[in-house]
Amino acid sequence: MPVSSELIEKLRSSDKKTLAKVLTKVENEEEGSEEILKEIFKFTGNAHRIGITGPPGAGKSTLTNNLIKLMTEKGFKVGVIAVDPTSPFTGGALLGDRIRMQDSGMLENVFIRSMATRGSLGGLCKNVVEACDVLDASGKDFILIETVGVGQSELDIAQTADTTIVVLVPESGDSVQAMKAGLMEIADIFVLNKSDREGADAVAATIKNIIHLKPPSKDGWVINVIKTTGSQNKGTDLLFDEIISHKNHLRESGFLKEKRKEHLKNKIVDLVSGKLEVNFWNEKRKEDLKKNLNDMLERKNDPYSYTETLLSR
Amino acid sequence: MPVSSELIEKLRSSDKKTLAKVLTKVENEEEGSEEILKEIFKFTGNAHRIGITGPPGAGKSTLTNNLIKLMTEKGFKVGVIAVDPTSPFTGGALLGDRIRMQDSGMLENVFIRSMATRGSLGGLCKNVVEACDVLDASGKDFILIETVGVGQSELDIAQTADTTIVVLVPESGDSVQAMKAGLMEIADIFVLNKSDREGADAVAATIKNIIHLKPPSKDGWVINVIKTTGSQNKGTDLLFDEIISHKNHLRESGFLKEKRKEHLKNKIVDLVSGKLEVNFWNEKRKEDLKKNLNDMLERKNDPYSYTETLLSR
Repeated sequence: MPVSSELIEKLRSSDKKTLAKVLTKVENEEEGSEEILKEIFKFTGNAHRIGITGPPGAGKSTLTNNLIKLMTEKGFKVGVIAVDPTSPFTGGALLGDRIRMQDSGMLENVFIRSMATRGSLGGLCKNVVEACDVLDASGKDFILIETVGVGQSELDIAQTADTTIVVLVPESGDSVQAMKAGLMEIADIFVLNKSDREGADAVAATIKNIIHLKPPSKDGWVINVIKTTGSQNKGTDLLFDEIISHKNHLRESGFLKEKRKEHLKNKIVDLVSGKLEVNFWNEKRKEDLKKNLNDMLERKNDPYSYTETLLSR
Repeated sequence: MPVSSELIEKLRSSDKKTLAKVLTKVENEEEGSEEILKEIFKFTGNAHRIGITGPPGAGKSTLTNNLIKLMTEKGFKVGVIAVDPTSPFTGGALLGDRIRMQDSGMLENVFIRSMATRGSLGGLCKNVVEACDVLDASGKDFILIETVGVGQSELDIAQTADTTIVVLVPESGDSVQAMKAGLMEIADIFVLNKSDREGADAVAATIKNIIHLKPPSKDGWVINVIKTTGSQNKGTDLLFDEIISHKNHLRESGFLKEKRKEHLKNKIVDLVSGKLEVNFWNEKRKEDLKKNLNDMLERKNDPYSYTETLLSR
């Protein structure tokens, strides 16, 4: 199915209705979505992609809101993808964050999209990257990707973001400890939000200590801890300056190219895996698997031998 | 490489050194691990697998400890897999939970293993299922799989556990709200831990309300909320009774077979995908991808067209 040049033009001029329609198509992997993604790829690569992640309750939505306001005040065009935790079964997204974001969503140069996470093969956030491509092609300067929750989605975000911000709060305490190892690896910037609360300085010191213990990053970037108080919109300017510093550093060091090459490589590996899977599981093989499951349940056969047979046929 | 019958015998008699060695092999996907898994598959399927999950700080480790004690007192053999949040890069596990679990680990009929989560293709917890198979073949009655954190790992656990326990605490508050949708789908039993704290009754009531709003489960199981106070070892007996109820229900309703059939199906799909991927990405194709990345970075080509070409060759 050829993609109409009118659609591409409307998308590139950031027409909100078109954007919404295309994002839905891409999110649901509707027919024709890959053709659109193929067509718009040449218009991507201009937006700076910022991942915002951290434990639940760290105030990521408020912080995202504050960044949106600041960025649009400075004349930038901003796209936002909010990845909601949700059921792999119903696929529905929660309303909370959408509502909280609405006052920013009213602004002219902002486009906000909530996406449901799905427990699908091939990665939790597969279509988030593609949604970013759509926003990117529509001419956004910044794309903010907010992920709620911890775990796989954070690692996926680090696989598409140019700058990854990890948001923590003083009272995270134990859970901060528990998540430190994983978060430390992906953070380009740490934000200590709700930093007016008790224990903020101690947590900030702990984070700084761990940063110092890390081997220096390949590209020479030094991770900072930025203190914010999201509810009072304090520290947003400092955070924005730090984002710009990181953005400039990536460009000047040539590391942006390396990072994006890595992201692209992963994207292709995912694309190939998806196609191989779809091609392999034709009706005949699906039927064969169904027939053989009982034998395996009764331990007359094992999944390894069965897979070997299936692949060798 | 043929697997020695001595190794299999030692494994089946639950020799701790052998168990540790085989689990390491399986966790790291060392050569020969698949042969072992193939060989032991016929001895699996006897253990009841229990997933224990929930937000960080909910007291899952303490609860797991309490369950281990109770189960071993009753004469059961218990295997434990603790999935630690950790870096996808270093692959190292945190020490905290291991240490907390050590007093149980000293007991004769318990085998505890901490595993690192890895950001690998094909699922975060791929080898956790295989580790469960190893423990299962060693003659355990119960296998407890404790996952720290929320997100993909929880969904993966629901894909291998016979019974999934979701642990919440009164003060989870907002984050409980945020995670409710996803957790609701996978829970067979809810535990409200730290239930001596303020707000416990309100949270218990909220959970019960949501349970009532759910459509009744296919197999007729009714989800209960069990109140515990892990630090005082209160409510562990109630939780154990509920696990046994669910275990019996699964067997009597025939739903255990359905559940395990589904798990087996997913396992084979994963196995196939892994093999297809490994077979596809030979040195020549890897080299080709490497050469073409720059063209795509410069937007002279797009990943979709490139993937098509690669697959059609």
